[in-house]
Amino acid sequence: MKAMFPGSFHPPTLGHMDIIRRAAGMFEKLYVAILINQEKQYLISADARKAMFEKCLGDLDNVEVVTGTGLTVDLARQLGCDFLVRGVRDASDYAYELKLADINRTLSGVDTLFLPARPEISSVASSIVMDIARHGGDISPFVPTEIKDDILSAIK
Amino acid sequence: MKAMFPGSFHPPTLGHMDIIRRAAGMFEKLYVAILINQEKQYLISADARKAMFEKCLGDLDNVEVVTGTGLTVDLARQLGCDFLVRGVRDASDYAYELKLADINRTLSGVDTLFLPARPEISSVASSIVMDIARHGGDISPFVPTEIKDDILSAIK
Amino acid sequence: MKAMFPGSFHPPTLGHMDIIRRAAGMFEKLYVAILINQEKQYLISADARKAMFEKCLGDLDNVEVVTGTGLTVDLARQLGCDFLVRGVRDASDYAYELKLADINRTLSGVDTLFLPARPEISSVASSIVMDIARHGGDISPFVPTEIKDDILSAIK
Amino acid sequence: MKAMFPGSFHPPTLGHMDIIRRAAGMFEKLYVAILINQEKQYLISADARKAMFEKCLGDLDNVEVVTGTGLTVDLARQLGCDFLVRGVRDASDYAYELKLADINRTLSGVDTLFLPARPEISSVASSIVMDIARHGGDISPFVPTEIKDDILSAIK
Amino acid sequence: MKAMFPGSFHPPTLGHMDIIRRAAGMFEKLYVAILINQEKQYLISADARKAMFEKCLGDLDNVEVVTGTGLTVDLARQLGCDFLVRGVRDASDYAYELKLADINRTLSGVDTLFLPARPEISSVASSIVMDIARHGGDISPFVPTEIKDDILSAIK
Amino acid sequence: MKAMFPGSFHPPTLGHMDIIRRAAGMFEKLYVAILINQEKQYLISADARKAMFEKCLGDLDNVEVVTGTGLTVDLARQLGCDFLVRGVRDASDYAYELKLADINRTLSGVDTLFLPARPEISSVASSIVMDIARHGGDISPFVPTEIKDDILSAIK
Repeated sequence: MKAMFPGSFHPPTLGHMDIIRRAAGMFEKLYVAILINQEKQYLISADARKAMFEKCLGDLDNVEVVTGTGLTVDLARQLGCDFLVRGVRDASDYAYELKLADINRTLSGVDTLFLPARPEISSVASSIVMDIARHGGDISPFVPTEIKDDILSAIK
Repeated sequence: MKAMFPGSFHPPTLGHMDIIRRAAGMFEKLYVAILINQEKQYLISADARKAMFEKCLGDLDNVEVVTGTGLTVDLARQLGCDFLVRGVRDASDYAYELKLADINRTLSGVDTLFLPARPEISSVASSIVMDIARHGGDISPFVPTEIKDDILSAIK
Repeated sequence: MKAMFPGSFHPPTLGHMDIIRRAAGMFEKLYVAILINQEKQYLISADARKAMFEKCLGDLDNVEVVTGTGLTVDLARQLGCDFLVRGVRDASDYAYELKLADINRTLSGVDTLFLPARPEISSVASSIVMDIARHGGDISPFVPTEIKDDILSAIK
Repeated sequence: MKAMFPGSFHPPTLGHMDIIRRAAGMFEKLYVAILINQEKQYLISADARKAMFEKCLGDLDNVEVVTGTGLTVDLARQLGCDFLVRGVRDASDYAYELKLADINRTLSGVDTLFLPARPEISSVASSIVMDIARHGGDISPFVPTEIKDDILSAIK
Repeated sequence: MKAMFPGSFHPPTLGHMDIIRRAAGMFEKLYVAILINQEKQYLISADARKAMFEKCLGDLDNVEVVTGTGLTVDLARQLGCDFLVRGVRDASDYAYELKLADINRTLSGVDTLFLPARPEISSVASSIVMDIARHGGDISPFVPTEIKDDILSAIK
Repeated sequence: MKAMFPGSFHPPTLGHMDIIRRAAGMFEKLYVAILINQEKQYLISADARKAMFEKCLGDLDNVEVVTGTGLTVDLARQLGCDFLVRGVRDASDYAYELKLADINRTLSGVDTLFLPARPEISSVASSIVMDIARHGGDISPFVPTEIKDDILSAIK
């Protein structure tokens, strides 16, 4: 069984790492897919985000980081994945994810499973990390130690 | 009793059509009102969206499609409508709609009634349809057959 | 068009009266249906609740109060109603009502429309009124003046 | 990887069957665990519910139905399961399930993954099925054909 | 300024202790009020719960534990409190608490302020602690060490 | 005890004034902090918003209006505040605020308390007021009388 964990991961957070480690234990192969919206501009390039993940996840043999454009489910099918994995922080996240999962299953037959965020990191979101970093706040409690400086350098 | 079903309908979806058909059975006259936000740019013009509705709703004698700018309730009053009709997909939609309904009643005395989306199409939203179409995905499960090609042409 | 407003109304509140008055303006005929769950015991009998409604709604010619057992949609069909009307106080109410509406449409084809509670009385619920009354609190802000003493007498 | 799908399943519904079939494709072994709350009385015995599942799931070689008392996570550990599987119908379900999942992980290290209910059956709940059945309504749209009569017999 | 933290606290949890310590820093005097619903039976007596709080909160000079029957706001007024304090674990808790706060302000003028539960203990609820304890599970992660054995003795 | 009520207040509404008056009764000193996002453009300058507040709050001796850039918690610490105060309109607001409160406590130790919006003004939001004003609607029910004309002048 192969699965894909899609997102923009701008930047990766402790929450993402936790979902990846838990999901990696469930599937033969887990792709972490950095989806690129070509209408957006990113402070941290997709390649830089890919490198950040690889720095943190080197010990997980069955995890591979890829980048892609286009529809999430098209990439999932290309990679032979029957499942998408999504972390869910709270019920309002879930309301949104539920609709997306249904659309994705209708489009492609690819199913989605959800892993609940661990409560102690359930408030962390990439957008908040970016906001804190831009204002000179301390992002240490929210991102992996290995990539903290990479994030700070990238947004300068 | 006259009612108005306001929205941006960019583009019309199966969800919109379902609400219109159900509401048309409740009121003497139902206006479908395409509201134009003059600060936004639309890939599909309001007139094109109007034409899409008319293609699908020709069998409903008491439904009329109009376009308008300005406040929703001002248009409702001009058209002699005492009620707004809104489709609601889930509880998070409702949280937003509830506040809007209250503001609208305070501004104008126009009341709002809600029809729940049918579950099998409750995940469909115009913004998602646009996103799928732009990435070359199949929008057939989400929009009326009659206007599928019109939508695809409009966004090219 | 006929509609039915079902509930246990134990006791009727200002919230119920507001929904009834707004819905009565939309339909040719509105039935207020006091549904009796035969496994429950009620401090206020269904007939007493019916009398309370009639005391408050005498000026509305197209409203009739009935009592019933069994499934809500069976009663609706017997009365020739195509619509159920429900008041919704907030998004958590709606999450519950949405599922019920879907079940009811599947069972019978009877559709449900929702009216949002007016914010200034959106916190009122029959169960809270009963709780306040039993502890000697003042229920005046929550129920129609005409039936306040009837409620207090009934629960002694 | 083994997983457990716990519940009271009183009675099993189409929603449960859908979750089981989707989860069975993800795990080497899936236990469907009928948890018995010894302070409750059940109209349908746990053994009868077990028989109902077995009637419907005979084609799934890696699914086994068990009954148990006590804490869900204790049973999961006895069965060698690292994951609980739960179906989630909407955001209000999720709010509850999220807290339970966290408690269960704290108690035992057993993780929980969520599968979203398919929209067209997302309003179905065992308690509503029981309510409809008791009032002589038609439960066919909500339960597997094979066990419809078993359910109706059991609650007479 | 005096405030009251009302609840049933059956039993007290780490979540309650956290709210009390944070609220005690905001007010001159904080009453922890164990409200007794005379229609319920409690496995742990109100006096036993009061003793549990006193065991844990001895270092807080401005906190006093009381028991009461009747309406929460009546007790608050008797004690000279202008504010109720409530801990809120998540949005679904809040939906309920918001309505209660509004009813209480209408009844008495007493205002309510909310403190968010700390995420790492936001899944803990008294009812779940009781459930775990009754099934022989380990309640240590959810209740203060000082009262763990008192809780276990009380429910035997 | 000092507290800070942060926001963009673009423009101030009756909802903000209500929260300020209630919070001012709880703390020795309350700062109303207009936070400036330097990436946004504002129709009403921060100084103009400050002047609007001062026009309405002159009778409250312990309230001071300040403007700031940067992280909310940095400003709170500079001003010696241990608490942030936030008004919460409904459960979906709360879901967002809860995560922010947790992030802020992690960053700085500054705690957040929530006051529920009064129901009769709980639908009012600055963004809706701006939208109504721009379309020539009547904003009187939503903003303090003293500043209505200032708002209308500012956005012309």
